[in-house]
Amino acid sequence: MDIIGLQTPALLVERSVLQANLDTMTQALPGARLRPHIKAHKTTALARAQAANGHRNFTCATVREMEGMARTGLGADLLLANEVLDTRRLGVLVEEGARVTVAVDSAETVVAAAEGGVKEIVVDVNIGLPRCGCPPSEAGRIADLARSRGLTVRGVMGYEGHLMMVTPESDKARMTEEAMALLLAASTDVGGDLISAGGTGTYAINTWATELQAGSYALMDTAYAALGFPFQHALSVLATVVSVSAGWAVADVGLKSLGMDHGNPTIPDAAVWFCSDEHTTFAPADGHAVRVGDRVRVLPAHIDPTVALHEAMYLVDSDEVLDRWAVDLRGW
Amino acid sequence: MDIIGLQTPALLVERSVLQANLDTMTQALPGARLRPHIKAHKTTALARAQAANGHRNFTCATVREMEGMARTGLGADLLLANEVLDTRRLGVLVEEGARVTVAVDSAETVVAAAEGGVKEIVVDVNIGLPRCGCPPSEAGRIADLARSRGLTVRGVMGYEGHLMMVTPESDKARMTEEAMALLLAASTDVGGDLISAGGTGTYAINTWATELQAGSYALMDTAYAALGFPFQHALSVLATVVSVSAGWAVADVGLKSLGMDHGNPTIPDAAVWFCSDEHTTFAPADGHAVRVGDRVRVLPAHIDPTVALHEAMYLVDSDEVLDRWAVDLRGW
Repeated sequence: MDIIGLQTPALLVERSVLQANLDTMTQALPGARLRPHIKAHKTTALARAQAANGHRNFTCATVREMEGMARTGLGADLLLANEVLDTRRLGVLVEEGARVTVAVDSAETVVAAAEGGVKEIVVDVNIGLPRCGCPPSEAGRIADLARSRGLTVRGVMGYEGHLMMVTPESDKARMTEEAMALLLAASTDVGGDLISAGGTGTYAINTWATELQAGSYALMDTAYAALGFPFQHALSVLATVVSVSAGWAVADVGLKSLGMDHGNPTIPDAAVWFCSDEHTTFAPADGHAVRVGDRVRVLPAHIDPTVALHEAMYLVDSDEVLDRWAVDLRGW
Repeated sequence: MDIIGLQTPALLVERSVLQANLDTMTQALPGARLRPHIKAHKTTALARAQAANGHRNFTCATVREMEGMARTGLGADLLLANEVLDTRRLGVLVEEGARVTVAVDSAETVVAAAEGGVKEIVVDVNIGLPRCGCPPSEAGRIADLARSRGLTVRGVMGYEGHLMMVTPESDKARMTEEAMALLLAASTDVGGDLISAGGTGTYAINTWATELQAGSYALMDTAYAALGFPFQHALSVLATVVSVSAGWAVADVGLKSLGMDHGNPTIPDAAVWFCSDEHTTFAPADGHAVRVGDRVRVLPAHIDPTVALHEAMYLVDSDEVLDRWAVDLRGW
């Protein structure tokens, strides 16, 4: 099928670019060195492509992602890298045979893990981003508490999310080393062999973590791509031009098909003016006039929340539709 | 059930506030004077509440919304207030007995309507917002073209969306009158008896339209509410506090459960610092400390894209859950 047969808006994933992104990351971080983060695509079919590249351990952000991964046969080693108080559904997954590890950063989350039937935890340590994670000095105490509740402590995790977009690279490397020194110190207090950290922004420089939790590298977005990583845009939103006026045109992609927290999307050879619920108003560049009915590919500024708005993504080779992948890990 | 039993994040709709909002609008614009816009909530159960208030004509933004409304028995008079090139699914609705009217603003959209089996159109006229809509001077020509293709021309629509948030009210009233003068002139050229326009922002001052397409009034958001309309926040996102640090706390509501195009959400008695995929980091105000496991209600800055991220909304009376309404009109 040609993309002209797709209802718009439609997520498109360019197969060759996706595979090149996966291969580039796998070459840098093979096997267990990478724990791909599922939140970036919410699609078990894409996770299977990551598994085919040799990665069997995955990172999730929600209980729903954990459930979907486990029940599609990708539950060999799943880390829920967020704190959760209601762990009953995770306990069910453990009973079903999945390996489930959950992040804890407080007595309450330790107790919740134990009471819900989770068996394994990592201690989430704050290494500079003001979000979840205990102070490094408290990590050992939380690990002891977890052991006292019968939990296995696999190690520590931290997320240097405040450093992902630091430039120049030399500053990012120095600041990442400082952040990881906090995590390594906590690791000594906590025990276990996992030191899980990072993301696409620090994949090449974070040599201290035993595993990296990168996700964006697979599909990429314009915010990350501006920083010069060796990953290319694999995802776009196919739109139909539904209206053309003197000086601007309107595509049928808007706030309900684009993550907007990083700002407006990009349309090649055009200037984006603004987005409405179901529309993007844009001015085509000279020589790139569009007509009603034309298809355009819109590049989201932030992939993760964009994917969460769609039921499916279409794997394409240029204009040929190869497959439909359900975005089957949405919701909570 | 108490809200403590809900998985978070969860959309909550406060029943009494919703009903008060619906009643206030119905009093101002009874019956056919209001054509409620379904895009603001994407929920047929909420549309039924609007119908119970005496409104039988509805506005939609997508083909999926049209299908869902028609097939739940609310298809007496549905206006798709957007241009669409692939009208085949609308033609099916016509065959099934729904009354379907679609906006057109070009020869291409007229031809698409006729070829897809749509019988009735309105001419969409640009009255100042650079988006869809033909120039007022071309409206008559497009109406003639539509009639030549066998379509019934019901009238005109325009959207003074650029004026919704103008202050002071006197400026908004003057500018709305100027915009509507364009639409009234086009109406004379086009014929038909519908003059459809407006939204929540101009519901009280747009006395020229025969019907208003308001949607936000039902649930409201912080952006609109700041302007002093007599509608209150009926919708919030219930979150669980999953982590507390010295100086901040983290709730499990983020970019994937909040429309972010109007900026950060609001948490009463707290300052919101930033949102991540599944988290909002906030600083509780003095005297309003939170603990891990507490529930907080997060107010989205923009309702429409927030609703599109959720599978359901829960109708509540304070902390008591009264009903679960599927957000059944998502997607396209």
